This record gives sequence, C-alpha cells and structure tokens, in this order.
Amino acid sequence: MNTAASPSKRILGIDPGTNILGFSIIDIYKKEIKVIKIGVIRMSHLTDHALKLREIFVQLNHLIQLYSPNEMAIEAPFFGKNVQSMLKLGRAQGVAIAAAITNDVEVTEYAPKKIKVAIVGNGNASKEQVLKMLESILKVNLSDQLHDATDALATAVCHHYQTQNPLTKGKKYSNWSSFVANNPSRKK
Amino acid sequence: MNTAASPSKRILGIDPGTNILGFSIIDIYKKEIKVIKIGVIRMSHLTDHALKLREIFVQLNHLIQLYSPNEMAIEAPFFGKNVQSMLKLGRAQGVAIAAAITNDVEVTEYAPKKIKVAIVGNGNASKEQVLKMLESILKVNLSDQLHDATDALATAVCHHYQTQNPLTKGKKYSNWSSFVANNPSRKK
Repeated sequence: MNTAASPSKRILGIDPGTNILGFSIIDIYKKEIKVIKIGVIRMSHLTDHALKLREIFVQLNHLIQLYSPNEMAIEAPFFGKNVQSMLKLGRAQGVAIAAAITNDVEVTEYAPKKIKVAIVGNGNASKEQVLKMLESILKVNLSDQLHDATDALATAVCHHYQTQNPLTKGKKYSNWSSFVANNPSRKK
Repeated sequence: MNTAASPSKRILGIDPGTNILGFSIIDIYKKEIKVIKIGVIRMSHLTDHALKLREIFVQLNHLIQLYSPNEMAIEAPFFGKNVQSMLKLGRAQGVAIAAAITNDVEVTEYAPKKIKVAIVGNGNASKEQVLKMLESILKVNLSDQLHDATDALATAVCHHYQTQNPLTKGKKYSNWSSFVANNPSRKK
C-alpha cells in the first residue's frame, strides 16, 4: 500500500430512500480501494416530506463540497411496492441527482441486481454475501454499519469496476461540463 | 388597473412531467392578477432520462433567477399509471423542488383536484372549464397555450387563492431561510 500516492479517482456511492440515505466515499488507487467515509443521512425524525427532501439536498451537498468526489453512483431500483412509494422514492432520487448536478459531479445509476453481479458475481446474492465480499475486497469490518450504508458502498465499488470495464458500464449521465460543452446554446 | 403599484407577490406555478414541464409566472396586485410569463420547458428532444432531469434543473433555475418569484406552487398528482412512470415523475418533481430550494423559494404542492376546486369550484371540472375560468379571471387569451402551461397557470392562481385563505392552504414547504432559522445546527 502506497499511501503517499494520490488516488486516481474519488467515488461517492449513495443508496437513497425516503427515510434514510446510505452513502460511502471511496478512493481508487492503482492497486487498492480505500474507504474514506461511510454512513447514513437520516430523515425519519422529519415529519414533513418536503423537509426530508431538503435534508437530502443539504446533507448531500455538504458531503460533496467537503469530500469533492469526481463521480457519484446511485442505486436505483425501478420497481417498488406501489405508485405512491415510487413517487416518493423518485423525488428523493431526483433531489440527490440535483445535488450532484449542481456540484458538477457525474452521476451513474445502477440497478440492485447489477450491483450484486459486480460485487459477488450473482444477481441473486444475499445482503450477507455482498457484505462479506466487500469486507474481503476492502479489508474493512462493516459489521456495525447499517445496510443502507453498505449498499451505498457496494454501489461505489460496483461503479469502479464498471468504469474499469466500459463494455458493461451502467446508465451514465454525462457530467455538467460535458453537457454544457455539447449544448452550447444551453449555457447562460 | 394601477401599473405603477408594485405587486405584493410573484408566484411561479409549475406542472412538471417527464417530457414537458409547464410553467407560469403571475404577479399579485391588490385587485388584480397579472400574467407575466407562461410557457413550457421541453425535454422530449433529449433521449437520455438524466439529461431531461438536468434540463429541468437548468431551465427552472434560469427562470427563477430571471424572474425572482417569491413562491413556487407545484401540481403534484399522487397516483399514476404504474410504478415506473411514477418513479420518473417523482424524479422530475424532485429536481424541480431542488431548483426552488437552492434559490430559497418556498414550495407548496397541490393535487389536481384541489386546483380545479380553487379555480372552478368543482374538482371534476374539465380542462376546458378551467381554461375558460382562467381567461375570465385573468383577462387573457390562452387558446394558443399548451395544457401543461395552462395547468401551471391554474396552479399558480390556486396558490394565490389558497394563501389568501390560510384555512384551506395546500401542503406547504417552509422556505429555506425559515428551515435554517428553525434548525440552526444544520447551518454550515
């Protein structure tokens, strides 16, 4: 391990929900992935749905400005229990994506199965299998972390693997700068 | 009509969808409502869902900075066809709400039925009935406007009526400043 070298990339992984948002920040070195930060943003103490959305924006914006990740990867399930819960989840995702957009951080989204395949090699792997594999890859103990946080970590590591192999990459959002470069008329 | 007087309030009304977002800006005078701007933001030419979200943020942010509304009212249906379309709609709403949040504009959401009741007095009124009533109230011709735009106008007018009568107000999001004031620990 060469801690003196600079990481080639810093990735923010998030797993947004309506009451809790898991996040992780990893640094990519030539032969190593280093976990910089892992945790959750809690919204359950906020009774108002709007204040929850605001909390996502404030905390994520703060996190992005504090750690300056180059890219953000988001776990984005496309099917849920009912339309109302999916509308709320969509809002949480939308606010999180906007927080990245406003900070010029590129966003890529991954379906939960794709993340499991990337980490364990099996889209039907259990949460425990994903956790064990992450502990093995990253040489960290994750036993005291909430699954929202470890899911966010899996998302970040998945993104690293996927961007190493462009043939299997996720749904990538070009970043703000390239969007503006490609759409000069949109530039104010 | 006293054009020399300043409006007491400027309201931005929006009707966000995944391919088109209707918007309207109205000024509230003592005895008059004046339509300042009405139109749509189109996302249908953008093939990527992420670029559509980005377009919502850029254009709405631009509109807010250009016209400096005091408040934003959003038409927000809570039930749709399927979970996937509701997730996408939720994302569009989330990005639009984030655009308001980042500009310290207070957001209130209204269900479509509530808007119809506010304008026509009947939650089952047709789009044509709402249109005719808006034309009568505002003394404008709306025949060449898309229904997304007139829905946004109805949302803004509804918000004005609702805030005049606090007993029947919509789901109000306290604005950023009051949120920070009430949550000093969140202030960076």
